[in-house]
Amino acid sequence: MKKVAVVGATGYTGQELIRLILQHGKVSLHTAVSQSSGGKKLAEVYPSFAKFTDLTLSAEHIEEVAAKVDLIFMALPHGIAAKSVTKKILDKCAVIDLGADFRLQNTKEYEQWYEYKHPNKAIVKEAVYGLPELNREKIKDARLVANPGCYATCSILTLTPLLQAQVIDLESIIVDGKSGVSGAGRSLALGTHFDECNESIKAYKVGCHRHTPEIEQELSVQAGEAVLISFTPHLVPMHRGILITSYSILNRDLSEDEIFDIYKSAYRNEPFIRLFDTAGSDYRFPETRWVKGSNFCDIGLTVDARTDRVIAVGAIDNLIKGAAGQAIQNMNIMFGWDETTGLNQVPTFPS
Amino acid sequence: MKKVAVVGATGYTGQELIRLILQHGKVSLHTAVSQSSGGKKLAEVYPSFAKFTDLTLSAEHIEEVAAKVDLIFMALPHGIAAKSVTKKILDKCAVIDLGADFRLQNTKEYEQWYEYKHPNKAIVKEAVYGLPELNREKIKDARLVANPGCYATCSILTLTPLLQAQVIDLESIIVDGKSGVSGAGRSLALGTHFDECNESIKAYKVGCHRHTPEIEQELSVQAGEAVLISFTPHLVPMHRGILITSYSILNRDLSEDEIFDIYKSAYRNEPFIRLFDTAGSDYRFPETRWVKGSNFCDIGLTVDARTDRVIAVGAIDNLIKGAAGQAIQNMNIMFGWDETTGLNQVPTFPS
Amino acid sequence: MKKVAVVGATGYTGQELIRLILQHGKVSLHTAVSQSSGGKKLAEVYPSFAKFTDLTLSAEHIEEVAAKVDLIFMALPHGIAAKSVTKKILDKCAVIDLGADFRLQNTKEYEQWYEYKHPNKAIVKEAVYGLPELNREKIKDARLVANPGCYATCSILTLTPLLQAQVIDLESIIVDGKSGVSGAGRSLALGTHFDECNESIKAYKVGCHRHTPEIEQELSVQAGEAVLISFTPHLVPMHRGILITSYSILNRDLSEDEIFDIYKSAYRNEPFIRLFDTAGSDYRFPETRWVKGSNFCDIGLTVDARTDRVIAVGAIDNLIKGAAGQAIQNMNIMFGWDETTGLNQVPTFPS
Amino acid sequence: MKKVAVVGATGYTGQELIRLILQHGKVSLHTAVSQSSGGKKLAEVYPSFAKFTDLTLSAEHIEEVAAKVDLIFMALPHGIAAKSVTKKILDKCAVIDLGADFRLQNTKEYEQWYEYKHPNKAIVKEAVYGLPELNREKIKDARLVANPGCYATCSILTLTPLLQAQVIDLESIIVDGKSGVSGAGRSLALGTHFDECNESIKAYKVGCHRHTPEIEQELSVQAGEAVLISFTPHLVPMHRGILITSYSILNRDLSEDEIFDIYKSAYRNEPFIRLFDTAGSDYRFPETRWVKGSNFCDIGLTVDARTDRVIAVGAIDNLIKGAAGQAIQNMNIMFGWDETTGLNQVPTFPS
Repeated sequence: MKKVAVVGATGYTGQELIRLILQHGKVSLHTAVSQSSGGKKLAEVYPSFAKFTDLTLSAEHIEEVAAKVDLIFMALPHGIAAKSVTKKILDKCAVIDLGADFRLQNTKEYEQWYEYKHPNKAIVKEAVYGLPELNREKIKDARLVANPGCYATCSILTLTPLLQAQVIDLESIIVDGKSGVSGAGRSLALGTHFDECNESIKAYKVGCHRHTPEIEQELSVQAGEAVLISFTPHLVPMHRGILITSYSILNRDLSEDEIFDIYKSAYRNEPFIRLFDTAGSDYRFPETRWVKGSNFCDIGLTVDARTDRVIAVGAIDNLIKGAAGQAIQNMNIMFGWDETTGLNQVPTFPS
Repeated sequence: MKKVAVVGATGYTGQELIRLILQHGKVSLHTAVSQSSGGKKLAEVYPSFAKFTDLTLSAEHIEEVAAKVDLIFMALPHGIAAKSVTKKILDKCAVIDLGADFRLQNTKEYEQWYEYKHPNKAIVKEAVYGLPELNREKIKDARLVANPGCYATCSILTLTPLLQAQVIDLESIIVDGKSGVSGAGRSLALGTHFDECNESIKAYKVGCHRHTPEIEQELSVQAGEAVLISFTPHLVPMHRGILITSYSILNRDLSEDEIFDIYKSAYRNEPFIRLFDTAGSDYRFPETRWVKGSNFCDIGLTVDARTDRVIAVGAIDNLIKGAAGQAIQNMNIMFGWDETTGLNQVPTFPS
Repeated sequence: MKKVAVVGATGYTGQELIRLILQHGKVSLHTAVSQSSGGKKLAEVYPSFAKFTDLTLSAEHIEEVAAKVDLIFMALPHGIAAKSVTKKILDKCAVIDLGADFRLQNTKEYEQWYEYKHPNKAIVKEAVYGLPELNREKIKDARLVANPGCYATCSILTLTPLLQAQVIDLESIIVDGKSGVSGAGRSLALGTHFDECNESIKAYKVGCHRHTPEIEQELSVQAGEAVLISFTPHLVPMHRGILITSYSILNRDLSEDEIFDIYKSAYRNEPFIRLFDTAGSDYRFPETRWVKGSNFCDIGLTVDARTDRVIAVGAIDNLIKGAAGQAIQNMNIMFGWDETTGLNQVPTFPS
Repeated sequence: MKKVAVVGATGYTGQELIRLILQHGKVSLHTAVSQSSGGKKLAEVYPSFAKFTDLTLSAEHIEEVAAKVDLIFMALPHGIAAKSVTKKILDKCAVIDLGADFRLQNTKEYEQWYEYKHPNKAIVKEAVYGLPELNREKIKDARLVANPGCYATCSILTLTPLLQAQVIDLESIIVDGKSGVSGAGRSLALGTHFDECNESIKAYKVGCHRHTPEIEQELSVQAGEAVLISFTPHLVPMHRGILITSYSILNRDLSEDEIFDIYKSAYRNEPFIRLFDTAGSDYRFPETRWVKGSNFCDIGLTVDARTDRVIAVGAIDNLIKGAAGQAIQNMNIMFGWDETTGLNQVPTFPS
């Protein structure tokens, strides 16, 4: 049994990590740090954990924690991990950061989009962008993994085969994202007050959402040249789920079947990618309900011959493949375990 | 008092029409036709109407109805109005059809998208597309108004100023639509069963939704040349509301303020268009909650300088500006009344 | 036109009052006071009001306001009105308080349940409990009306005929209440954060909710002797609506029809009470959806012969009949107008 | 590995059973029968199962199935199991029926409440009511288990300690139940159409719900004499969850702590009962969100000294402890396995 810690244990991502850890089988939860609730029992903050753990939340500093565990999951707002994850800590234990501080290799871009001076640029180089479907080999040897953002995970996975196959016009990509409310976290805000977001839909941070440069960074790697996208996130009145609707102009004449084959080939061996076949099934495109509670990314597509566009649609559970589940997946890879360990949950429906 | 009838009175659109008629002030509801519930009291089918009307639903044929009223609202699935609205009927009374049968002037296009042979092509020429903001003058003299589709209303209003001002690349337009579930009507279907659509989001009819040619027809009129768009509708777990997120590439260098001025100028005198100013307010973009229960179309926009795109966002209540409210607005124009008569409801929040 | 003011204008009840005032016809909104948003335009805080009013929110003291208007609606948390509504103010203008400070004639009970020393006991005697169905005559001459609580309104109306007719055991009454989330107001709290209350139901303040003594006070008046009840409120994941399920043991042998006649007779002339008939309709019991957006209280009942209990069920829109609408109704009575002025909205469905 | 079959595989309960079976570890899903979808792949009907099973749904008769498996789960509307589960079948394999046909030992009561003549009365005697917390020993040796109804499970578990301890007046029990919509199943009906049940709450089958005699049967066993209750179910706009609010009059003077001790003692060794302690935690009463996705029944209570009532509140996930999870729990007992095998899921929050 490896010992792990969760720092930021009482946010939605933190507690979801703990849920997955408790059911994992190969790791034990050694420490759960919460600055706001230190001293309380976890099950007092989240009664869902009653009968599973008697753990008392700690308010320890990450340095103390690092000495006692094999891996730390950081689930904190951006800016904090940047300061606290040092070389000294990485010498003691591995770190998977679920925040944004180590995702952008170009720290200037980070500082621009996050309006925050990065205090720890040197260490960013060491970080591996933790999207296993693209970076599996690098993750194996990483000491510091930057776990991707939720929108970024779904957008990159939905578009990557098109870029690898070089079949689309790189200037044409539009990503229209829709997210459940849990992506905004547990901190109180007017916009996530029940009566302000239920029974309504809105676009937000149009053209300025911070997952944009992250998506562009990874798509550019796949394309082999710089890619700029238009990305608009929307808030949907539901707990969990991200749906990405992407639009790209084909640069050559390809049928839907040919595009579909590109995807099949790209994701042939991926345990967590499920393609919606163009033939047969009642369900032609992914819906967030079919992945809820699981680590899957479901993908479907069509070719709109009238406009020469391929419309690819992806769906994930934002707290699992978009956060805690992907972090577990990264941990499994780092520790040399089967990548799906502890992540075999069948999606729960209806839920 | 003018006398009106609603045919298809027990669908969501029909009953919403009746709600607005009962509060209108200048019209009385003479007849409400429902094939499925003829003989029942309206308030037995919808207890919301108790204390407002004792009306018994009728199963009369539209010809009988036409002889007794000044105007008929048709709120039926496509295909039925096409057959039943004849010249003879139009000689007796005005008709506003809330279905799709008279919206497309090109009946070939109709037959292609609706996979249904139009039985009454001659009369289509007489129909006026009932979007008052574009066709007010023609509506005044119309005997037959084709009330626009819900997605179409919001999409056309959100994009029209850009086309009129000729500032965008006509091949670049993408319309990503999101709708509440009431748009699917009261007929039972697995996809609108509570447990199948709540807490989930999906794209549907990707590249093949029937509002596409309707949007293209009207945008082409505004542009003065043929426009093709990519349109993807999505189902959102809420009762009411349509949000349109549109993406277009600017064909010249224009600032957000300049674009905004184009909209202000285009909609200067429109009673039902509200623009979200780029400065000041807490709310930068429309949200469906702010129009719920009203006939407004709220519009906001931004220019994404990185990609030369203008992203314009529009919001309506699909059952009001997207259906019954717009029909009332058309009736007001046809009868020479103030266009806002009976449509002055302040949006209800939270609801 | 009478001039009115709303103090506490940016809470959910305050803005709902303003919505109703703007559509009322016989009153004009002179002043809207908000301590938190003074100086802002109302439509910047609630974009729903755009195009309806240019009003700037004021942070004036109630004394200044009183000199300029005919009536003040107070929509504040308990404790504030108790301090600020003085005889001096009542000499200048009428006051309808939508908070709890003047509802309980027994100020000891108030102090016990609200754990707050009442600073203005003398004035409580002057207050009239503003439930028009019971106190219409007294309201006519009142200068200070204590607008009932939302749960209290629905519970009292649902049970009153049974008490007036003296057909139930007074010790047997149980009131199981269910409320939408808007009842908790706009102040941020973990319990009304979307992800904490959506898709779940809970009981809260079991046996200690502050509407209990209010219900008991009014039921005791109707019964002619002291009544104690068990009251349990529940939070339901929806915006609006209160449903009351009440259980009482019959003290004599009465059929459902006989009980129903008691209700019909008690509410014969009430414009805002609708009874669900035991025969015929598809809908046997009230549901909150049928009253949403209106000032109605819908009531239905059954007699369970196995246990000699009458189960009476009532439904209201908590922000209308349970707050702002009832306040308008009270104002109408105080000003000698038709009680339904500005309150003729047909419930909006689906919404 | 034992082999099991699910008959009625495409209802919500059936597919939830399959989800649990696929993750169980000690059983394999041999056959899944669906009359409506026989011949289709399960993952075509429920894409959630993609990558987990290639199983094709069968339309076989239960007799054929019985010959090939160790246990059959029947998840069908009432009336069908009554006809098809014969002695011959029980000689071949064990049966757990999740419907109502074998729950009531008094078949006259069955015929009265279900308005259906029981075709197989002899076999009813052999059936064991499958509530492990009460009937564990009998379940061990059963060939036919009648899996309890969802409301019944939660009601009985919430009240049982009070009856065993004989501390309440048996004529005073009121059970006010609230359920999510999935309890109504996947069959289309107007009442579970999204726009008809979302954003609303209603009581239904007041005084006549079919779980009433089931609750009474088991409470009577615990009390040692006949118990009649008043039971009112309500429909709550959420997917999963049942909350039971029960009211009983204490027949002696007992403090909250004393009552709580009665519960602690009654459920001391129960793996799936969690008591909400009266002291300490932020959460005083159960909420359905804390059990969602798990097999737990959470219970909390208070004593209302003003009315001598104990109010006990229970919460379950209706599809798990109220159906499929409890069936698995029963299977574990029948096969002599640890009762919690395959049921160790931590509740998923928020979801």
